[in-house]
Amino acid sequence: MKFGVCYYPEQWPEARWAVDAQMMHDAGLQIVRIAEFAWAAMEPADGRYTWTWLDKAIQTLAEAGLQIILGTPTAAPPVWLTRAYPDVLRQDANGRGRSHGTRRHTCPNSPTYRRYSQRIVQMMVTRYGQDPCIIGWQVDNEFGGGKTGRCYCPHCAAAFRTWLQARYGRIEHLNEAWGTVFWSQTYANWAEINPPDTAIDKPNPSHVLDYYRFSSDSLGTYQQQQVDMIHAGAPGRFVTHNFMGLFRDLNQFDLAAALDFITWDNYPTGNPERWRRYLLPVGEAAGPVVDYAYDVGDPVITGMAHDLMRGLKQRPFWIMEQQCGHINWGHTNPGIRPRTTRLWCWHALAHGAEAILFFRWRATLFAQEQYHSGLLRHDGRPDVGWADLKTMQAERALLAQIAAASLAAEVAILWQYDDLWALQEQPHHHDYDYMRQLFVFYQALSSSGISVDIVSPMADLSRYKVVLAPTLHVTSSPVVAALQAYVRGGGHLLLGVRSGFKQASNVVTAVPLPGALSDLAGVTVTDWQSLPPPAGWVLQTEVPGLSGLATYWVEALQPHGARPLASYEHGASAFTEHGVANGRVYYLGLYPTPAQATAVCHYLLAGVGITPLVNLPPGLVARCRGPYTILLNFTDHPLTAHIHGRDTRVAARDIMVLDQASLEG
Amino acid sequence: MKFGVCYYPEQWPEARWAVDAQMMHDAGLQIVRIAEFAWAAMEPADGRYTWTWLDKAIQTLAEAGLQIILGTPTAAPPVWLTRAYPDVLRQDANGRGRSHGTRRHTCPNSPTYRRYSQRIVQMMVTRYGQDPCIIGWQVDNEFGGGKTGRCYCPHCAAAFRTWLQARYGRIEHLNEAWGTVFWSQTYANWAEINPPDTAIDKPNPSHVLDYYRFSSDSLGTYQQQQVDMIHAGAPGRFVTHNFMGLFRDLNQFDLAAALDFITWDNYPTGNPERWRRYLLPVGEAAGPVVDYAYDVGDPVITGMAHDLMRGLKQRPFWIMEQQCGHINWGHTNPGIRPRTTRLWCWHALAHGAEAILFFRWRATLFAQEQYHSGLLRHDGRPDVGWADLKTMQAERALLAQIAAASLAAEVAILWQYDDLWALQEQPHHHDYDYMRQLFVFYQALSSSGISVDIVSPMADLSRYKVVLAPTLHVTSSPVVAALQAYVRGGGHLLLGVRSGFKQASNVVTAVPLPGALSDLAGVTVTDWQSLPPPAGWVLQTEVPGLSGLATYWVEALQPHGARPLASYEHGASAFTEHGVANGRVYYLGLYPTPAQATAVCHYLLAGVGITPLVNLPPGLVARCRGPYTILLNFTDHPLTAHIHGRDTRVAARDIMVLDQASLEG
Amino acid sequence: MKFGVCYYPEQWPEARWAVDAQMMHDAGLQIVRIAEFAWAAMEPADGRYTWTWLDKAIQTLAEAGLQIILGTPTAAPPVWLTRAYPDVLRQDANGRGRSHGTRRHTCPNSPTYRRYSQRIVQMMVTRYGQDPCIIGWQVDNEFGGGKTGRCYCPHCAAAFRTWLQARYGRIEHLNEAWGTVFWSQTYANWAEINPPDTAIDKPNPSHVLDYYRFSSDSLGTYQQQQVDMIHAGAPGRFVTHNFMGLFRDLNQFDLAAALDFITWDNYPTGNPERWRRYLLPVGEAAGPVVDYAYDVGDPVITGMAHDLMRGLKQRPFWIMEQQCGHINWGHTNPGIRPRTTRLWCWHALAHGAEAILFFRWRATLFAQEQYHSGLLRHDGRPDVGWADLKTMQAERALLAQIAAASLAAEVAILWQYDDLWALQEQPHHHDYDYMRQLFVFYQALSSSGISVDIVSPMADLSRYKVVLAPTLHVTSSPVVAALQAYVRGGGHLLLGVRSGFKQASNVVTAVPLPGALSDLAGVTVTDWQSLPPPAGWVLQTEVPGLSGLATYWVEALQPHGARPLASYEHGASAFTEHGVANGRVYYLGLYPTPAQATAVCHYLLAGVGITPLVNLPPGLVARCRGPYTILLNFTDHPLTAHIHGRDTRVAARDIMVLDQASLEG
Repeated sequence: MKFGVCYYPEQWPEARWAVDAQMMHDAGLQIVRIAEFAWAAMEPADGRYTWTWLDKAIQTLAEAGLQIILGTPTAAPPVWLTRAYPDVLRQDANGRGRSHGTRRHTCPNSPTYRRYSQRIVQMMVTRYGQDPCIIGWQVDNEFGGGKTGRCYCPHCAAAFRTWLQARYGRIEHLNEAWGTVFWSQTYANWAEINPPDTAIDKPNPSHVLDYYRFSSDSLGTYQQQQVDMIHAGAPGRFVTHNFMGLFRDLNQFDLAAALDFITWDNYPTGNPERWRRYLLPVGEAAGPVVDYAYDVGDPVITGMAHDLMRGLKQRPFWIMEQQCGHINWGHTNPGIRPRTTRLWCWHALAHGAEAILFFRWRATLFAQEQYHSGLLRHDGRPDVGWADLKTMQAERALLAQIAAASLAAEVAILWQYDDLWALQEQPHHHDYDYMRQLFVFYQALSSSGISVDIVSPMADLSRYKVVLAPTLHVTSSPVVAALQAYVRGGGHLLLGVRSGFKQASNVVTAVPLPGALSDLAGVTVTDWQSLPPPAGWVLQTEVPGLSGLATYWVEALQPHGARPLASYEHGASAFTEHGVANGRVYYLGLYPTPAQATAVCHYLLAGVGITPLVNLPPGLVARCRGPYTILLNFTDHPLTAHIHGRDTRVAARDIMVLDQASLEG
Repeated sequence: MKFGVCYYPEQWPEARWAVDAQMMHDAGLQIVRIAEFAWAAMEPADGRYTWTWLDKAIQTLAEAGLQIILGTPTAAPPVWLTRAYPDVLRQDANGRGRSHGTRRHTCPNSPTYRRYSQRIVQMMVTRYGQDPCIIGWQVDNEFGGGKTGRCYCPHCAAAFRTWLQARYGRIEHLNEAWGTVFWSQTYANWAEINPPDTAIDKPNPSHVLDYYRFSSDSLGTYQQQQVDMIHAGAPGRFVTHNFMGLFRDLNQFDLAAALDFITWDNYPTGNPERWRRYLLPVGEAAGPVVDYAYDVGDPVITGMAHDLMRGLKQRPFWIMEQQCGHINWGHTNPGIRPRTTRLWCWHALAHGAEAILFFRWRATLFAQEQYHSGLLRHDGRPDVGWADLKTMQAERALLAQIAAASLAAEVAILWQYDDLWALQEQPHHHDYDYMRQLFVFYQALSSSGISVDIVSPMADLSRYKVVLAPTLHVTSSPVVAALQAYVRGGGHLLLGVRSGFKQASNVVTAVPLPGALSDLAGVTVTDWQSLPPPAGWVLQTEVPGLSGLATYWVEALQPHGARPLASYEHGASAFTEHGVANGRVYYLGLYPTPAQATAVCHYLLAGVGITPLVNLPPGLVARCRGPYTILLNFTDHPLTAHIHGRDTRVAARDIMVLDQASLEG
Repeated sequence: MKFGVCYYPEQWPEARWAVDAQMMHDAGLQIVRIAEFAWAAMEPADGRYTWTWLDKAIQTLAEAGLQIILGTPTAAPPVWLTRAYPDVLRQDANGRGRSHGTRRHTCPNSPTYRRYSQRIVQMMVTRYGQDPCIIGWQVDNEFGGGKTGRCYCPHCAAAFRTWLQARYGRIEHLNEAWGTVFWSQTYANWAEINPPDTAIDKPNPSHVLDYYRFSSDSLGTYQQQQVDMIHAGAPGRFVTHNFMGLFRDLNQFDLAAALDFITWDNYPTGNPERWRRYLLPVGEAAGPVVDYAYDVGDPVITGMAHDLMRGLKQRPFWIMEQQCGHINWGHTNPGIRPRTTRLWCWHALAHGAEAILFFRWRATLFAQEQYHSGLLRHDGRPDVGWADLKTMQAERALLAQIAAASLAAEVAILWQYDDLWALQEQPHHHDYDYMRQLFVFYQALSSSGISVDIVSPMADLSRYKVVLAPTLHVTSSPVVAALQAYVRGGGHLLLGVRSGFKQASNVVTAVPLPGALSDLAGVTVTDWQSLPPPAGWVLQTEVPGLSGLATYWVEALQPHGARPLASYEHGASAFTEHGVANGRVYYLGLYPTPAQATAVCHYLLAGVGITPLVNLPPGLVARCRGPYTILLNFTDHPLTAHIHGRDTRVAARDIMVLDQASLEG
């Protein structure tokens, strides 16, 4: 378990560098990330390079014993580039482009921008690739941040046509796949196709989904060019990128595939502001954040982000930017209290972080992030996270012990960006969101102390006893085959509402639902309805905790092979279980409340012999890692967990680690 | 009373057509509408036509005994057209145009678009005009849908200037009519005039009203070209268009005038979402839809739309698209229950529908309307409306009997698009809407079981005992003359607040209010005020139910000839009655609450000897047609109506028909 | 104390002018403003002038004994100008420009617009400059109104570069001042700099603040050209402009500096709608306006506007446009009641108005302001304000007596547009607004009957016993020096949270807070936090009324020379007092509630021997002017004030004047 920090030597007087480096070292920091926004400082004019300052900065940091991660600076080009080639600027769906003075204002499909990006990266790799102080590279910065995941400029239009041609081969196949016969949309040639008109009117959803896939792929190929150059010129150094947790606009699985491991930027007080409207029940999402969470964020939301980030490659990750004070982009940007930073770090460790770099060393005196705190204040004095850093230095041994333990989870939730995007475009129910449908299950498991991986359907599923697919909406042959193989191999799979509805090109299946998953589930959906609460169908079941009203989204099931576990008043089945070879497939034909989701999860866990921790009080997080159970109390009061028959009390805003021995003792 | 369905043969395999046609026939459907979005299928390239598929589809449907309505496909041009002539694309007030892939993205004033529209329609008329299977034609589709009622492109700017020149003759007259001396707006020539800048700032309201009139007229002349071609080439066939109920942006009276009869598209669960913010009291409009209405819509709102549609030509209408399951464009898009479709059909019949076509035959597998249900599900099995269709087959005799009965109403409400538009631009009170002011009276009458026509002031008013003009805001000589004639002929006319305020060019009258209606009303408005509740003026009156607070909009009346029926605490009159020849004119100087509107309506009805049904419970609709009283219970509970001294119980979600004989028996 | 009215002869038949003029005279009006929107009437075509009508109008008004103010008509150019030179049109940050038909649609930096503006003004000055009937001139109209304070057109981009060059001299200095090293923003030359991209993304705050300053300066130099021409050609006549109270987008101090005195446009029912969201606590701002205020506006908000307007030049002002009925641009635009206009006039007098012109003579029949009332109604009859005008004629003697009395205030609040703009761009807490932070103190003083000047830090502060700087956020050497001088001279200064945070170029100070004000305050801020209520720090203090919770914004203070007056539970100081030479500096490290602000104000006032009036009931305003205490009861009930040991009862919606003698008697 290593600690580090993000540093911007170009923003401080050279004379200060050595002071800062020494302070970092003394504070126990081992890693420092630099350079990811310094293009203008490296290449102040087209083709003119100034490396002296960077040489010096690297040397100074290295001399203090710090290991260095170099960021490629392509997220913010110099002004001479955008002025000389205005066509490198991105455009949103309204045709508006942002200009110089911010970041991510360029298009990944601009040939000019690619050329210049490659040149500056190649120059860096040539100069620093073999430098022993450089342990790894970060490509660009937060792809898609600030609503830049999709560009609608002419370069993108052209690249989209090429992408479509590669996907569909012949225009007739595209017409068939998209159903363009509808409203006279039929295309005669590729040149007639534009990006979808998402800003003004509802376009064809097949058109939209392909544009979202294309946009993600565009950043994928953009990233790949840099990855290849770095791997070639900097052998032995890792290449990574800093992801954004539950960010919705890019296929993070695809982007992660090219990297050695992934890192992500964790801002717990900002996470709920970014994502709660997609995750929490609609009423709660609009209400105030719970009291204890005002300066710690919502640990379930942050935990879900950790678990997705770990799931991107089914392996541990780094935190490239860890909040350690207030942020500058939230609603109230609350200051944090002593011990908050430590809670966040332990929380990350429990979920699989191998290293944590704080953002940032010292609060900037100028520009957009003036109000973002760091380990040091504007005036150079320690800010509130500093003391926690000291505390954790004293905990190094225990941190290392846990960091070495296994992260194996027995339960996985499936996540598909195709599903997220398809349902975002056509939620049908205003309050329906793919992430909300996943979160209700995630929260049920998390509050039961169950470790969960959030993975792609194409991941190695054989590691899991139970796999939950709360909405496997868009099906493709490989995904169906993977699920079949998993179940036949003995896995237990839960399918939820709206599964199997769409084919890969985002059109509806013509066979009874759940379409291609119908045989696996052993049921047919004979009716489905979107319902506004309190309208609903009443459940009858012997599954403990599952009874009550089903609303929001309901499906009437007709089993053919499956066994009903719950049914509706009017007779149709609501929840079924289907034995397939060595495995089992459950189909849940309703959108559950948190209590219903918990009932379903516990029923499934019982089927594979997993015992959940029950009755964890809100704000107390329990996470198992190898022989350790890590308990984190995010509240202002001591809390007690009843674990394996014993009461364990955790002090307010504190953590406690139980090991197997003590639990069994 | 006929039933039919909307069908898109081009969207299904040719092999399926005969199956579908037979199923339609077996389900008792007699009519099928086709082709209204199939331009690309008819003319896949400029001037190249492919009629074989359409010939075959018509033949297949006809062979199953179905009568066919052909839609002209001009609401969605092929991509080759918009790519070759980008100037056919419409622009909104922000200069933004939508591109290919949706519909209604073209400008009705584009000469090129008119030329191509005429050519494809002429080709269809030439080929199918004499076909005995084709009973009628639908021109285009839902003019103005999706906020396309007004375009701001250069073609429109040019056409607007021509339109203005025709209206005003000389630029001096326009300057005078609009009051351009204000803020140096004076024009020296027509070329200086642009469409009003409605997106960014408040333009001159005279400029705005004329642009709204011009925009409506533009679609009128566009429609007329098609109507003329069809009438010429398809003798004996009807020509119609599918209107959109309470749609606000076009003058539906004008558009209807050119048609043989009108049809409209009725989506009861969507109607409240579209219109309740204009109709209901502000607080209610923001609240949840009442419980029983979640899957039936608000029957008062749907009823008002029926009555306006019938009033467009003062004659019965068709439903061209009748919802029969969930829609795809609402907030929650609730699934519907058994018997809902039947309630809607009976409701339409009670209000004057002569035929009902369901939308659509089978749910589409692709494109924008995937989530819109039909009579059949995606997988081809019957959806929930199917059983109701069967039920109604058994009710055919009764349906036919009622369909033959008279629709005569004794009460009319006047509707002027000039008033709607003028008040929309200058509500003065944030919560004031022309439609809200009409709805409070409509609801009072509707919940008293009174049949109402909603008609233009230029309609034949002599049929009505009572005419309500809740706000006759923009006056013109013909309208004033028509009202005078109506009253002199013995009619009873109610004028409400803000009447007579504007002259035809949307400037204020310089004479005391109600301006040109002052003599007719026998009153002068000496003061008027917009008021935020609970600020208000207290009423004193002997009219039963009218007392209490007047707020929101109040006018102090000074009678000159009229007799006060109610006055304010401070002495001025609030409600007056003026005998004129054989008729009577009432002036109501306040914006009434629902209870006050009911009191006023009952007072007026008593004056002409009409006895309202009173105390209809919410959700129970009563509508008289000839000798029949049709009762519809939209709730989940049995309800009892006290009609003509007798209690009649209607089962939950059911209908009951009383005839005169049984009532008198 | 004079009364007058705004009149538009060009909008009425010439035959009516003499009638109107005589009526004005008979009503006791002495002044009339004309011509400020009549450019098209003066110059109907480029270079063709028509003065006859204006000659005649001036003559007619003058013959009735009226004194005339001429407005220059540059706020609304004729259409021939904008059509011939489209580049004179302004653009917003989205690149959208509004077109002819409204007003303020031009750019102050357009050379063409400046040329034409100068020509028409010069023509007017040449013709009317020496006219004895003309007593003064109004330049343009409401600079910045309708969100036109900032333009983003190419002319502005060019002018901005010139402005920057003048400010920074060398591009390196700008880079240093703005911190452009951040995100590779560094500029190599002036031509690379654009207006900030405020519409799409967050730009560099230094870039933004400079653009706001530049925009204000642009209207300043535009105004100066007209001021100079008028002063040169119309000797002895005053030159003024009509300001907009608490308008946020321009530096009204700078604009006022060039004028002989300032006037402002006072619309009390509209003032809260414009400003309450910036002034009131967040919950209250969203709630309904208090009952009594529905037709009088919020007297504290209007009072604050009066006090800022008086503070612009530290001298009395005129009301150029005084509401006298309903307005047309608000939410409900309530009608007003008898005596409302009189209350407004007395309120203005109490705050320092020397003359009041009503807006407008008669309601316009046409164009945008049809629904704006005047002294006369559309039909020419008196509207509700007319009777109040008559009442005030009878009060002329008392009005004159008070108008002659001193306006000296002993307390001032500092207002800096730099602070407002910097905090608007970076509030850090969503609910933080500079004006809200000032208002809590203003309201505390106002409701204690204390007269307050709202002035620039560069004003003559020596007149005040106490100066409050609730947030002196952006510091510069002159401001710091001015405050030091004030304190050393014996003044008592209060500094509030976030003071001293920024340097003049809107970057953060690198020294401990409050930065350049630290020595003066005798404290260092060791921690500061934005907090969402109810999270907060608990106060401990002996200052009466100050205890309780500090939330929203808290600062931990470490005194070095100062004496703690309050501290937080955790030990740090919260409120301090620092003796400096003959003066005293208080630092309040928390954002106070209204009660806490009152406690702090009373503590400070006690320190200089000022006794506040306490317990004024809401809606009762007390304002001292010379020997008079003017009491205004804005409510519907009689209210009693306890003043100097005696109860004084003021009738509902009435005023009462107490003089020193009666109070001491």
